[in-house]
Amino acid sequence: LMSEMRETVKQRFNTVGSRRRFWESLLDGPVPEMVFGGQDDAAKRAIQAAIDTDDDKSFTQGEVYLVGAGSGDPDLLTFKALRLMQKADVVLYDRLVSPAVLDLVRRDAERIYVGKKRDYHAVRQEEISANLVSLAQAGKVVVRLKGGDPFIFGRGGEEIATLADHNIPFQVVPGITAASGCACYAGIPLTHRDYAQSVMFVTGQLKDGSLNLNWDALVQPQQTVVIYMGLMGLSVLCSKLMEQGMSADMPIALVERGTMPEQRVLTGSLSTLPAIVAGETMHAPTLIIIGEVVALHDQLAWYEGESNSV
Amino acid sequence: LMSEMRETVKQRFNTVGSRRRFWESLLDGPVPEMVFGGQDDAAKRAIQAAIDTDDDKSFTQGEVYLVGAGSGDPDLLTFKALRLMQKADVVLYDRLVSPAVLDLVRRDAERIYVGKKRDYHAVRQEEISANLVSLAQAGKVVVRLKGGDPFIFGRGGEEIATLADHNIPFQVVPGITAASGCACYAGIPLTHRDYAQSVMFVTGQLKDGSLNLNWDALVQPQQTVVIYMGLMGLSVLCSKLMEQGMSADMPIALVERGTMPEQRVLTGSLSTLPAIVAGETMHAPTLIIIGEVVALHDQLAWYEGESNSV
Repeated sequence: LMSEMRETVKQRFNTVGSRRRFWESLLDGPVPEMVFGGQDDAAKRAIQAAIDTDDDKSFTQGEVYLVGAGSGDPDLLTFKALRLMQKADVVLYDRLVSPAVLDLVRRDAERIYVGKKRDYHAVRQEEISANLVSLAQAGKVVVRLKGGDPFIFGRGGEEIATLADHNIPFQVVPGITAASGCACYAGIPLTHRDYAQSVMFVTGQLKDGSLNLNWDALVQPQQTVVIYMGLMGLSVLCSKLMEQGMSADMPIALVERGTMPEQRVLTGSLSTLPAIVAGETMHAPTLIIIGEVVALHDQLAWYEGESNSV
Repeated sequence: LMSEMRETVKQRFNTVGSRRRFWESLLDGPVPEMVFGGQDDAAKRAIQAAIDTDDDKSFTQGEVYLVGAGSGDPDLLTFKALRLMQKADVVLYDRLVSPAVLDLVRRDAERIYVGKKRDYHAVRQEEISANLVSLAQAGKVVVRLKGGDPFIFGRGGEEIATLADHNIPFQVVPGITAASGCACYAGIPLTHRDYAQSVMFVTGQLKDGSLNLNWDALVQPQQTVVIYMGLMGLSVLCSKLMEQGMSADMPIALVERGTMPEQRVLTGSLSTLPAIVAGETMHAPTLIIIGEVVALHDQLAWYEGESNSV
């Protein structure tokens, strides 16, 4: 029956992709049951009706999934994330997606590296968004894979705003953000009845040797502060926090490659950690946790990975 | 060979559980290869050596996995969480774990509901911790399942501190916290280059009609504030924030049953949302998001679930 109709379908749909999608959508509907049930005429009429209704445009619209790849351990991927990674025609990923996670993308999917540098590149971000739009318009199922969670320092909002402007369907899949993954694997509760009633996430990227942070908001009682991308600015951060009134003894941890087999946790205080870190070779990604809760690491650390905590 | 040794094993180990664990540990070792390789005598000697070394105590130590169950959608479970849920002898869960997630626990596992009420019950928390200890000491594989992430308002730190005190092995598995799940499914980026450089999580539980919050920390520029468990205190929260200088026009969203099919998103401003919510019947769990980013919901909402946004 399909071969009988093939020529008609070929005339109606111009691309291999839209023909394949036409047949796929047909096979998902009632037609196969009609054929199995001996209703060949009904099946033919249904196919003809579908041909009359659909055209290339019905099957060239792609979709974009903005997916959080989590903090590094592939075991922390969500089911939804993996399913979409397995469905993708194209995957755009950046520097923070761990190789172990990237290995789980569908074998024959096209992989595009759009790794962002530490510094700010407005044009680059616009290019990524434009790329997502044109791939989806070409009918591709696109996964935009981001380290951690797409809505926490992922600039995911900007990318889907561009998609929305172009009426491209999208979904957003949360991921285990670095703060959550590193805290759990380092044995440092982010909130705790006795030590922290709130937790705050900020980025700590150095700009011309200084940090543009709201110090007033950071130096507050009973609060845990998590700094993303703060390794380069660690010394400046610690000095400035002490200058703003935070105790020099405040516990602080640097989690290197959190949730990955190479995880290391360096702990100290605002006055001691910069020197401890300066004596080590550090590898991205890193995360900084500041607050009384960090002192619990000694008792609550459980993840050994391949190396040991310092 | 196993039936030959059965009587000896029975005499050495008193419980069915420790006998089962003895055989399991043996089958994980080199003994099966010896048998398959025709080295029956070597296998017998290895089994006898294991019997001489091990006793009941070797196989009665259980383990506790503190597992984040995520924000509600079972599709947002991590692979690690599901695997441990499938391995558990006993699962302790509370009110915030969605029924759809609980359905994925191993069929024959014992389920213990330890749901906590809104108010603070110190004794209750101590009971849960004591329960975890005694189950692990009885040799059980215990999963302590918590809504969201165990280290973000989960009081997970207290539970594993008790385990550490009793030398019970444990692991902590991060989960998609409500802030992350609700933000993604509601189309509200928590951070955004133009509107928010930081995000803060607090709890908003009413106590004697008032909220014990650090208002100074909440009212800060370019910051998104997420309030867990804040529905009952919504009116007080909005009034107080305006009193402390936050604009009456500041966008605010209440996400009901976020990431679940029944998800609803109610949006307004500090001055209008309490009246909007008062006109609706709300169901737990709910999450409040405050900040300029909330205005993006109109453009970026994508998740339809079964009902519609208001």
